[in-house]
Amino acid sequence: MAFRIGIDLGGTNVKVGLVNSRLQIVKEQTVRTSGFQKPESLAKELALVSKALSKGHDVSHIGIGVAGDTDSKNGIVRVAPNLKWKNVPFKKVFQSHISGHVTVDNDANVAAWGIYNTQTPKGVKHILVLTLGTGVGGGIIIDGKIYRGGTGSAGEFGHLTIVPNGLPCNCGDKGCLEAYVGGLNLSRNVAKAILEGAKTRLKKIYKRAPSELTPHSIFVAAKEGDAFALKVWKEVGDNLGMAIGNLAYLFNPEMVFLTGGVAQAGELFLKPLSEKLINRAFETITQSIVLKVAKNPNQMGVIGAALL
Amino acid sequence: MAFRIGIDLGGTNVKVGLVNSRLQIVKEQTVRTSGFQKPESLAKELALVSKALSKGHDVSHIGIGVAGDTDSKNGIVRVAPNLKWKNVPFKKVFQSHISGHVTVDNDANVAAWGIYNTQTPKGVKHILVLTLGTGVGGGIIIDGKIYRGGTGSAGEFGHLTIVPNGLPCNCGDKGCLEAYVGGLNLSRNVAKAILEGAKTRLKKIYKRAPSELTPHSIFVAAKEGDAFALKVWKEVGDNLGMAIGNLAYLFNPEMVFLTGGVAQAGELFLKPLSEKLINRAFETITQSIVLKVAKNPNQMGVIGAALL
Repeated sequence: MAFRIGIDLGGTNVKVGLVNSRLQIVKEQTVRTSGFQKPESLAKELALVSKALSKGHDVSHIGIGVAGDTDSKNGIVRVAPNLKWKNVPFKKVFQSHISGHVTVDNDANVAAWGIYNTQTPKGVKHILVLTLGTGVGGGIIIDGKIYRGGTGSAGEFGHLTIVPNGLPCNCGDKGCLEAYVGGLNLSRNVAKAILEGAKTRLKKIYKRAPSELTPHSIFVAAKEGDAFALKVWKEVGDNLGMAIGNLAYLFNPEMVFLTGGVAQAGELFLKPLSEKLINRAFETITQSIVLKVAKNPNQMGVIGAALL
Repeated sequence: MAFRIGIDLGGTNVKVGLVNSRLQIVKEQTVRTSGFQKPESLAKELALVSKALSKGHDVSHIGIGVAGDTDSKNGIVRVAPNLKWKNVPFKKVFQSHISGHVTVDNDANVAAWGIYNTQTPKGVKHILVLTLGTGVGGGIIIDGKIYRGGTGSAGEFGHLTIVPNGLPCNCGDKGCLEAYVGGLNLSRNVAKAILEGAKTRLKKIYKRAPSELTPHSIFVAAKEGDAFALKVWKEVGDNLGMAIGNLAYLFNPEMVFLTGGVAQAGELFLKPLSEKLINRAFETITQSIVLKVAKNPNQMGVIGAALL
């Protein structure tokens, strides 16, 4: 494989990278998404950046991962709330500025594809990737290919009902996995507990600046021995363990990867997670899974896109 | 396609059928499973029956669906509780008695394969089949192929946790889908409610003969207007709707089929099921699903096996 360009198009930044045949990003450039109001002007800029990065190299493939619901077959971004895009034929728009083969897909699929290609041993065919960020999403690799489902919406891990009539979720439903382990909801749930009198050093942080109550500050408090914060992560592990147990029963995957900001607190929740997981009745299914926190999470969007 | 033989090997009966190229069973014979103590003697008998049914036809493929955990690649039945088999190389044993290509798979996969091949429009690639019988199982078709997962155990629908710390299940876990909608548990849950004073005409049946309290008698009572029985089926619909909503978010299937004894009460639970399903937040996923009760459920094991 020659060089390829991978583009990771998010709500805040766009990362454009030149990826070599050993699946390393050799050069990278970041573009501020908000600097370009329209998809057309953003596409033009990204084409310029791609050409500049490609200079002197033979680049025939450009892949783009977009934070939104995407029709990858036709290269159309159906809905991208953070970009405020609706039905944007981004492949067509981008292709008009550049030569080479262009592919557009959803960012969670792309990250899963990057992880699959760089972090699984040869022979592994079926993996799940759970992205634990502000929200919860993910990607599914089946038979060594990205699995998209009937209308391209498979892998909506964050909105699985894990507790009937449970906590309210931003999607409008109740009891979703994201309502329990999504970064935004994690902070909200802790804030609520503080207002209800929970004893924790996080109270001081919250009183000073509510916005500083984040998965990261909850992680730091737990590392410093705060009992309440430790319990928060134990519950994250319990809930993820139950959900991943269900996913295991359905997909019987060989490996499950966790990625995203919340996954970085893995050392605090992986133990309860594994206990929930391996103690299920059909232990041959759950115990056969290799569970990992993905390495180099910030590079997977660009590398996965380049490999589309 | 010429003629094929399909064998549906269950704990009580084995059905052997000759299937024509229009996917119809043209001749069928039933063998009592308990009549043959050992896999070897059963295999010998089934080979005799297969040869007799094939007489005068060109049969090159024989498929066998077994009620148990099966390694289809190697044709080994790993565990079949109802047959009391463990690690039986049934393909090899059977093959020694007959010529032709022999395939062995799990019965739920086989039924799903039969339904996929006879009851879905051309172009449909991804379907789920939930078998609502004494227990709850199922099969997954992805990209037009049976999906088995990493160790051949995918599609364990019955033991998804749907209620954390919910009703006890036969598997030893709590809150499994099967604990709420499996035929055996449905009867048990109703018996428990009767003993706790529920007002229902099922009480009389239960007092007369507890074994007559079955999904069928609960169905009949509901059809006759029994309010308690009607509520039982409404709850089956609610629980199935929630579970199928989760499956939809994961697999984004084009069609979902229900089959097995409990599915025959569909008219009483499909409405609440659909309401739960289509009222999920990501309605484009759930509303795109075509949900059906499978036709000719008793033939799907033989036809699916023949088509393996």
